[in-house]
Amino acid sequence: MANMNDVAKLAGVSRGTVSNYINNVKVKEKSRIKIEAAIKELGYIPNVAARELKTNTASNVVFIVPSVWNPFFSELTYYLQLELKKIGKKLLLCNSENDYKSEIEYIEMAKQNKVYGIISVSYSNILPYLNDNLPYVAIERYYNDSIPYVTSDNFNGSKLAVRELHKRGCKHILHITRKVEVNAALTDRRNGFEEECQTLNVDYAIFDCECQSEDFRDKVNEYLHDAYDKGIHFDGITCGTDRYAQYVLEILNDLHLQVPQDIQVIGFDGVKSYPNERLTISTIKQDVKKLAEEAVQMLACVHEKKAVTSKVLPTSFLQLRTTKES
Amino acid sequence: MANMNDVAKLAGVSRGTVSNYINNVKVKEKSRIKIEAAIKELGYIPNVAARELKTNTASNVVFIVPSVWNPFFSELTYYLQLELKKIGKKLLLCNSENDYKSEIEYIEMAKQNKVYGIISVSYSNILPYLNDNLPYVAIERYYNDSIPYVTSDNFNGSKLAVRELHKRGCKHILHITRKVEVNAALTDRRNGFEEECQTLNVDYAIFDCECQSEDFRDKVNEYLHDAYDKGIHFDGITCGTDRYAQYVLEILNDLHLQVPQDIQVIGFDGVKSYPNERLTISTIKQDVKKLAEEAVQMLACVHEKKAVTSKVLPTSFLQLRTTKES
Repeated sequence: MANMNDVAKLAGVSRGTVSNYINNVKVKEKSRIKIEAAIKELGYIPNVAARELKTNTASNVVFIVPSVWNPFFSELTYYLQLELKKIGKKLLLCNSENDYKSEIEYIEMAKQNKVYGIISVSYSNILPYLNDNLPYVAIERYYNDSIPYVTSDNFNGSKLAVRELHKRGCKHILHITRKVEVNAALTDRRNGFEEECQTLNVDYAIFDCECQSEDFRDKVNEYLHDAYDKGIHFDGITCGTDRYAQYVLEILNDLHLQVPQDIQVIGFDGVKSYPNERLTISTIKQDVKKLAEEAVQMLACVHEKKAVTSKVLPTSFLQLRTTKES
Repeated sequence: MANMNDVAKLAGVSRGTVSNYINNVKVKEKSRIKIEAAIKELGYIPNVAARELKTNTASNVVFIVPSVWNPFFSELTYYLQLELKKIGKKLLLCNSENDYKSEIEYIEMAKQNKVYGIISVSYSNILPYLNDNLPYVAIERYYNDSIPYVTSDNFNGSKLAVRELHKRGCKHILHITRKVEVNAALTDRRNGFEEECQTLNVDYAIFDCECQSEDFRDKVNEYLHDAYDKGIHFDGITCGTDRYAQYVLEILNDLHLQVPQDIQVIGFDGVKSYPNERLTISTIKQDVKKLAEEAVQMLACVHEKKAVTSKVLPTSFLQLRTTKES
């Protein structure tokens, strides 16, 4: 394979001039033309890794995510990579499985590898491991005012869900979610629900169970069966996520309750497992593409030491099969 | 931030000795102890990118995939990254959207960036762009005997689906798939279906429509409505993928046909959108984790210029709600 010396020889210029050309240092017009012809003739491919080291640029972005094997994160990862590609950057995928140690390992790896920056979805406190030389943008998590973040408006999205149920005649609404201290999104959704029920003066209950993800479906099952055994009848349920809504629908089916006739259900996220999937659960939709666009734009700003404002993106209601037409 | 000179100074050794230590060249025991103490005291982090260039090692693996926003590929990507991590390698995610030009761009990028190798799921002919210096492993695609690949046994998996329906009393079986010339998996599944129907002497039909992915559901809808209008009654359907099976189930529901009482349906893939998802469609399951493990092991062998044998992994039948108990 041709190297820089071959190019210099064929172009009849010094190796230093070729190096300058490759590293975007201005060279004489005459030299430029000869170098470009030589590069073309030899099929020379410059070593980008070497160039990046020399010019102190970097093109890899570390994306730390709990798991790409999840519809929300797979859509987010998809858009992040395409957005990064538009600005000539690449995505290093890092599944953390919500493991604090893994997250730290990935951050240390980022430091050691001269990356362009880090984008993360993390529910741990990784602040002590960050530093000013490492551009960083958080998705869905507020750390402090110096760490830029982008998130959907979970609080107001959840309020919207309550209003949509209220508009459709619901008078006794339940919120079903998992209690995960560090998950600000779920907490905001829970709190938005409560505030809006109080504002509208609607009867409400909250089932926010502190348990492992894999046990949650059973806990919801127990709770709903128990409630219906005791004669407590809800006419609307909002859920922390679409997946929780899916559990709820399966359980309501076992209880022989008709959705949306007897009880209406609204999820949260509006994610699809693949672009053409037909969703069926009414939901509060996050704009995942926009989240990715904003995260990448913000990272570029941080990298260039420009001022960055954190962003809270609006959500919208999606009327599907689990709520009545309003 | 501390650099190599700081370490050398504090350790009282030459910069070259520190460099040797960092690059795994043997240094005197006395020096090693002093260098390690200095590194610890200074919190020195070696620049991995620089070291990789110098030692001619690379740790990034380019993974070219149609789209990570798809349950099968998101699971595959998840396992690939974790497997690569085990051998100290990183995954650069490259969504190609099945676009030939994008795939070529990613391959050129791989060449320019001194990567460890490429793993790809591609349905295009990218052979002319590969070379011996670029370790390469294909998933689900046979190019020629010199390109190692790993795939599920689509042909025999599809034969298995026919046998499972036959065992459950089906006498008139339909295969529904999309015709995508370059997609060897779909082609093998179609051909396996046909061969097994002939072997078992079962009445069969094949709907293999040549159309865009987004039009396929409508085509299947038209075909099935037309068949039932004409009084053609199938009692079993095997589908090219689980997603096609999902379409079929929705259409059968519109036709007021009971599954599995009136008609039994088997998909292909057995993929989950997330680890705890409860699947409902009976299917031929691919071992996605194993695919990822094999692909990574094979890439490491290619990298080390060891002999590599391509692998065809067995599939298995998953009895769920859309077939009768046998």
